This record gives sequence, structure tokens and C-alpha cells, in this order.
Amino acid sequence: MEQTLSRLKAIDREIQLLTHTSALLGWDQETYMPSRAIKERAEQQSLLAGLIHDRLINPDIEGLFAACGVTDENPKGHESLSEQDRAFLRLFHRHYTRESKIPKELVVELSRQASLSQAKWIEARSKSDFAIFSPYLKKILDLTRQKAEKIGYKDHPYDALLDEFEPWMTSREVSEVFSDLKKRLQTLVRKIAASKQVDESFLLKDFPVDEQDEFGRAVLKDMGYDFERGRMDISAHPFTTGPGADDIRITTRYQADFFKTGLFGIIHECGHALYELGFKDEIKGTLLASGTSLGLHESQSRTWENLIGRSLSFWKHYYPKLKTSFPEQLKDISLEEFYRGVNRVEPTMIRVEADEVTYSLHIILRFELELALLTGELKVDDLPEAWNAKMEEFLGICPENDAEGVLQDIHWSFGAIGYFPTYSLGNLYGAQFYRTMKRDLGDIDDILAKGNLGSILSWLRKNIHQHGSIYTARELCEKVTGEPLSADYFISYLEEKYQGIYHY
Amino acid sequence: MEQTLSRLKAIDREIQLLTHTSALLGWDQETYMPSRAIKERAEQQSLLAGLIHDRLINPDIEGLFAACGVTDENPKGHESLSEQDRAFLRLFHRHYTRESKIPKELVVELSRQASLSQAKWIEARSKSDFAIFSPYLKKILDLTRQKAEKIGYKDHPYDALLDEFEPWMTSREVSEVFSDLKKRLQTLVRKIAASKQVDESFLLKDFPVDEQDEFGRAVLKDMGYDFERGRMDISAHPFTTGPGADDIRITTRYQADFFKTGLFGIIHECGHALYELGFKDEIKGTLLASGTSLGLHESQSRTWENLIGRSLSFWKHYYPKLKTSFPEQLKDISLEEFYRGVNRVEPTMIRVEADEVTYSLHIILRFELELALLTGELKVDDLPEAWNAKMEEFLGICPENDAEGVLQDIHWSFGAIGYFPTYSLGNLYGAQFYRTMKRDLGDIDDILAKGNLGSILSWLRKNIHQHGSIYTARELCEKVTGEPLSADYFISYLEEKYQGIYHY
Repeated sequence: MEQTLSRLKAIDREIQLLTHTSALLGWDQETYMPSRAIKERAEQQSLLAGLIHDRLINPDIEGLFAACGVTDENPKGHESLSEQDRAFLRLFHRHYTRESKIPKELVVELSRQASLSQAKWIEARSKSDFAIFSPYLKKILDLTRQKAEKIGYKDHPYDALLDEFEPWMTSREVSEVFSDLKKRLQTLVRKIAASKQVDESFLLKDFPVDEQDEFGRAVLKDMGYDFERGRMDISAHPFTTGPGADDIRITTRYQADFFKTGLFGIIHECGHALYELGFKDEIKGTLLASGTSLGLHESQSRTWENLIGRSLSFWKHYYPKLKTSFPEQLKDISLEEFYRGVNRVEPTMIRVEADEVTYSLHIILRFELELALLTGELKVDDLPEAWNAKMEEFLGICPENDAEGVLQDIHWSFGAIGYFPTYSLGNLYGAQFYRTMKRDLGDIDDILAKGNLGSILSWLRKNIHQHGSIYTARELCEKVTGEPLSADYFISYLEEKYQGIYHY
Repeated sequence: MEQTLSRLKAIDREIQLLTHTSALLGWDQETYMPSRAIKERAEQQSLLAGLIHDRLINPDIEGLFAACGVTDENPKGHESLSEQDRAFLRLFHRHYTRESKIPKELVVELSRQASLSQAKWIEARSKSDFAIFSPYLKKILDLTRQKAEKIGYKDHPYDALLDEFEPWMTSREVSEVFSDLKKRLQTLVRKIAASKQVDESFLLKDFPVDEQDEFGRAVLKDMGYDFERGRMDISAHPFTTGPGADDIRITTRYQADFFKTGLFGIIHECGHALYELGFKDEIKGTLLASGTSLGLHESQSRTWENLIGRSLSFWKHYYPKLKTSFPEQLKDISLEEFYRGVNRVEPTMIRVEADEVTYSLHIILRFELELALLTGELKVDDLPEAWNAKMEEFLGICPENDAEGVLQDIHWSFGAIGYFPTYSLGNLYGAQFYRTMKRDLGDIDDILAKGNLGSILSWLRKNIHQHGSIYTARELCEKVTGEPLSADYFISYLEEKYQGIYHY
């Protein structure tokens, strides 16, 4: 069995090396690639995807899994194996099973339609005309339904799709946590709307990009980001990617006239990167060296960005430094005013610009629409109307056109249905972990006010990062916090924090 | 046969895509890669090398070649095929034959020894102690001899090695052109040494890197380098690489206290890049889209760097612009003085810093030593002494230690024996082509003085670049210039030019 396992590990290693190579191609495409290289880059990526597929769907692999005792009922294989090897088998077998269930023709057709559909989405958004996009969305939806049928599910086709991004979670579970979240967030938004709005105008002054960069890099260092195992570059949309186990890169973008974009983006991406840089040596370079779910990954970025990076204690340490970097811009702004400014809550049309209170409502809106679209309960042609009605219901505002409404996100155009919930699950996981962290570390406000970010990273490494995908998100949540995922902690955090800011 | 050819072309296409992917990994490693990513990067490169090898040495390929009528006697296959397809077959079969002759164990052992030997070379050079390196060089030499035997040759084992870099050329041919070159260069060096030396001290003033970069990029644009199909970055050693058919990148390095390093390096690399960017559409993305030999490639870089970039006419156009960029540094320096300064000739120890007159003597020295080492006529232990004797004989100077003598180049440490001559062949090809170009274009000095670099690029595209590897270097030389390679044109060019500078 040791030998069989070694063969599986060797296959996995090749897959990881090819995946990292593909990550470098992607990183380069978004950062430094000359514009006309795009056509061949797509061919290179497609070749690598094929090589990865061939390694996963190889004729010997079922036999190798069987020899390790892996079955659908016993996904972790023989009990004599180590827990780590059993986690490896479970995850590898899961990848294999999902990939092998989707016929190649469907993959090709989805990929082809996604390209067409993405181009049409760009056109439709620029013209703010959903009718241009709707025939393509219908096709994508149809193919995605077929994909869900091929993969299989118990209760809802959504489960088959969600499972790609948030493994082992079902739409019913999401619905449960979201239903509580929705009600309480709506209440909170109403309370805040009835309160005196805070000022953020000073954040719209001129913040030269070079100084933003210098300040951001100093914060990255404090967070424990290792520039010998990563780097930061500029791209249109910030992201984190891993061209190697010791090579986890982040990107950012700066707006000279809006301070929040740069720094909070950097802290967010660094949160992702620290997860990827924190896997223990035993799993480094294997498929277990990955975030165990997108929700879990997002919990790391959002914890750093919001729970830590937008806390008063954090700015007790950093605000004096920030004032040194931007003395003119922040001249008459007190720490408290700055803190309130970076935490301003305001219902807006665009998800990616939303604050941490309204953000999850944008997600729940999409989740509910996706569920209804998949079953056919909601027709694509009725989507803009449904979107606008929910915006009105959730946030009390209504898009004036499709571009700032139903056409704002790229995800559906390439069939990424089931992805959105993970953003919001990240908020929930994050707050729940954070509560345990606070219990373990003691006076976390004091720790932050002293700028001692190292002890926070140590806690995250020990409790979350090192394990990679050894535990499922559910297992990890229960292991660390002692209970299953709940929206309570996130909501309580928001209620308490914004009470302090808005005094409702 | 059409179908067989298509299969071969599909195999080649995969090889090209993997080769370009590997080029991106290499580019990244030299420019932006975080330091600790190096270990996995080597694994990624090794995996890609294996994938490329598997595609070339695949069980069907001999049958495919045979079906196209390819034999050792008829390397271009059936005469009914187009000239381009026949050139494709000849080159592909050549790659296959070379690769298949070298046993995998020998490749692995050479690669292993090369790693060890490179590390020892670094140590030996830093301690300036050849004895540290010599046992490793002996092994490398032994393995390289084995490789030559496996590949096979008619007259001299050197031919098997040279052929990797300068296909279809023999050491006898190199010896012939070099013997003429050596004598006349030695005479020229002596004449110059007896003349009044020119001043270059103004090139050692402070030239801020940002201004150097701006000036260099302007020259690149004038040369016709397309920044939509390439880019320029900084690396320790300048190079040109192709991560895609529409993605040919160059790198440079600047020395703030030595103007020549940056600009002439940029022009040199751009010469390489323009070759790679100039292949005609019909061969783009295939194995024919490559320089037909390293010597031919080097002819392009050296033509731009030396024949054009160090000409008086070129600076008639650019010197006023350069003075605008560096008014203080060049205040009292006339065009003539500047021209003489950038063309200063002086025998020095280090090849990579040599001027265009002494450069080829450094190469001939290495070529002669390589020949003697391969046959065993010269023993590794006697190499430093032989090196120093030749330096004395060729350039009238003698290294004070091994670091500035026999240990200066990395090439031998990884088995690149047979590579050096291509640098010098580039000078010869370049001068011979340039003479034909001058005949075709008319008053080239007037063209350069007007800054009309576009007509030069057009000539190079039409006569050289577009063909890629369709013709061998020898075929191309005869096709363009009407005669085989000769050292005459290079020597005459040098004699005439330096007569004007040194008035000997």
C-alpha cells in the first residue's frame, strides 16, 4: 500500500507543479504580459489544463484508490494509514470523482460558451442592456444545469455546484445561516440609515501612490508576509496566486483619490497569502496545501481586512504612522474620525465597493436568485426585475440601470454559479474563529494597539493555516471553535462595532 | 501524407507551447521571482523538460517521419512537399535524431554533474583557485566526450558539440575562418596599441539610471521594437527570451557610473528580439520560428550594437538627443570625441567587457583550448597555463589570477563546449550581411544620420528574419550575400573603422 500511495503522491506532485506553472502564466497575464501575447497565453493555459486533466483521469488511478481502500463509503481509505494520508486520499478521490463525472464534451462546450458569454457580458454591461446578455446566460445556465445533473446531488442541483467552491456544504446549510443573517443585517442597516452619517471626505483627498505603496509594504511586513516567498505587484483587480509552494504573490491597485482601495485591498490579499504560506512542511507542495474551502480562504482575508484592519485598536498603533506619511491629508482628522471614516456604512449598488455591513446582503441576493434560476422558478428574462426588487427589499435602493444592477458581476457569464456564498461564508467563519482567538489570546485590543500582529499570525497558523485541507471547513470550524458554523458571531460583532460608531 | 504532416505539426505545436512556458518560468526567475521559490522552480523546469522530451521521443514519431519520406540521406522528405514543409521536416528530424541518440542516463548524469560543477565553479572563481574546479571540469569533459561519441561525428568530436549551437557547421570550417581572423586581428590590435589611446573618461561620470532607461526605450522604439509584443526589465545578466510567439522580452542592467553597459546592452538584446519578432506568419509558433543558428542570432544583436549602434552616422542623429538627456555629463564632449570614446579598444582580461576588436580573440582562444581539451591533447591540469600563454600571445596581457583568467566564464562548468565560437561567428555573419545591406540600401550613412532605422529593419526582415530556420545559416548566408561565410568583411570593417579612430 505504501507503494501505491507513493504513486498517487507522485501523480499529485506533477499536478501541483503544473498547477503552479499555470498560476505563473495567470499572474504574468494580469501583471506584465505584453498585450498581444494574450492569444497564445490562452493556448498555453489550455494545454496545461489538459495535462492536469490527463494526470487526474488516468487509466490506473481507480485501481490505485481501490488498493488504498478508498470507496464512496470510505473516502479516506484504510484505517491503518495516517490521518494525513487519509485526508490526502479523501481529497484526491474527491477531485478525481468530480472531474471524471463531467463528460469532456460538456467541459469543452462550457468553456466555449463561457468565452462567448463573457464577451457578450462585457458588451451588455458597457451598453447597460441585459437583453444582449440574456440569450447567452440562458445557454450557460442550461449547461450548468447539465453539469449539476452529471455531478449529482441529493436535494438541490445547487449543491453540486456549491460543492466545487465550498466542499461538502449544501445549499440547505447555506440557506439556514443566511436566513438568520439576512433578517438581522436588514435591521442593522435600517438602524444605521436612521443615524447620523459619518464623514469620509478626507479619504478622498490626494494620496500619492508611492507613499501608499510604502505604507502598505510596511504593514505587509508587520503582518508577517515574507518577501522572500512572495511579492506584490499592480493589477486591474487585486488577487493572490501561488506559482510555487514558496511563491505566493499578491497584487493590488491604488486610487490616488481614494485611500481605502489600496491599503485595505493589500491587507485583504495578504490575509489570503498568509494562509497559503502557512501550510505545514509535511503537506507543502501537495494537494493538501490549499485552502480547505473558498469560504475558509475568504475568512482569512476578511479577518485581516475587517476584524483587524478596520478596528480601532489596529489604528491606535498605525494612525500616528499614517499621519507621518500623509501629514497634510490627515491634518485635522482625529483617530476616532479616521476610524469612523474607514467604517462608513452606506447601501450602494455595487457589491465590490460595499462596506462590511451591507456586503453580505449583496451576496444573499445573488444566492437566492441563483437558487431560483437553477430550478427554473425564476426565468432569465425576469432576472433584472427580480434583482431590482430584492435590492429595494434588502438595501432600500434600486439600480437605475442594468449595468449597476444585474450586470455588475462577471461570475455568471462564465458559469460560476454557487461561488458567491463563499464570500459571505468567509465573514461568518472569520468572526467565529476570531471569537475563539480572542478567548485564547486575551486582551486582543491591547495586542493590536501595540502593533503585535505576530501573535495573531501565530494563532492563525497554529489553528488554521498549517492544516491546509486536512480538515474540511466544517471539521475545522468545529475543531477550532467547538461548534458548527453560525451567523451569530458575525452579527454580534457588527452590532457591537457599529453601535459604537453610529450610536443608534 | 498531409495527415501525417499534420500530426507532426501538432506534436511540434505542443513542444513550442511547452518551450514558451518554460521560457516564462526562466524569465520570471531572472526578473521577479522571490528568492525562496528557486527550489520548486527547478522542479517545474525539469518537469517541462521531461514533457518536451516525451513529445519528441514518442513511439510514433519515427513512423511519421518515414511516412513523409524522411531519411538520413533525404532529411527534407518527399519532394512533392512545399519547401517550407520540407524545411520543417529537416529541422524536426534533426532535433529528434540528436535527442534520441543521447541516452537518458547520460542526460541525467550530465545535468547532475553540471549542477555540482557550477556550484564548484562559483566557489573556485570567488577564491580564484582553479584546483577547486579542475576535478569537476574533468568529469564534465569526460561526460561531454561521451555525449559527442553518442551523437557521432566525421572528423572531430568537437563537431558533434558545435552542431548543437551552430547546426551543420564543422570545427574545420570554424578553424578556417578563425585562422584568417586571428592573424589580422592580432595585427590590428598591435597597430592600435601603438597609437594614441582615445579618452572614455566622460562615460564614467554619473548617468542616472532613470534617464538612461528613458533614452534606451526611445531608441528601442526607433529600432522598431513593439512593446505590445515585448517588454524590457532589469536582470543581473541581460538576455532575450520568448514566452510566446507574440511575446519576446528583453532585459538589461544599468551602471550609473558607466554609460556603455546600459544602452549598448539594450541595443544588443533588441537586435536578438527583432529577429524573433520578425518571423513570417506562415512559420509563427512552429519550430521554424527560431534563429537558424546561434551565430546567426548573434549576427543580429551585434549588427545593431556595433555596426549600427557604434557608428558615427548613428550618433550624428542620436548624440544631440543624448546631450539633451545628459547635458552636464556631456557638456564639453564633441560628437567625434563621444564616438571615439564608445569605440575605445583596449586588451583586457574579461571577454564580456571586451571591445569589438579584441572580442573575437577571446573567442578564438577558447575555441583552440576546447579543441585541444576534447582530444586530450591538452590536460585539464595544464589549462590555466595554456590560457595565460594564449592571452599573452593574442592580446599581450597575462591574467594575474585564475578568476580573471581561466575561471571567468560559466560555460564549461555546465558542459557548454562548442558554444563560444557562435559569438564570434555572429560578428562575421553580421559584417558580411551588412555589406550586402549597404549595397542594397545605398547611402546607409545618410540613412543612419537621419535616424531612419526602419529601413534597416525592413531589410533585415526581408532578407533574414522572416525565414527563421527555413534555411541553414550557410544557406542563408549564400542566399543573401552570394558567398559562403568569410572573415574578410568583418576584418575590413574593423580595419577601416579603427583606422579612422586611431589613425595608425
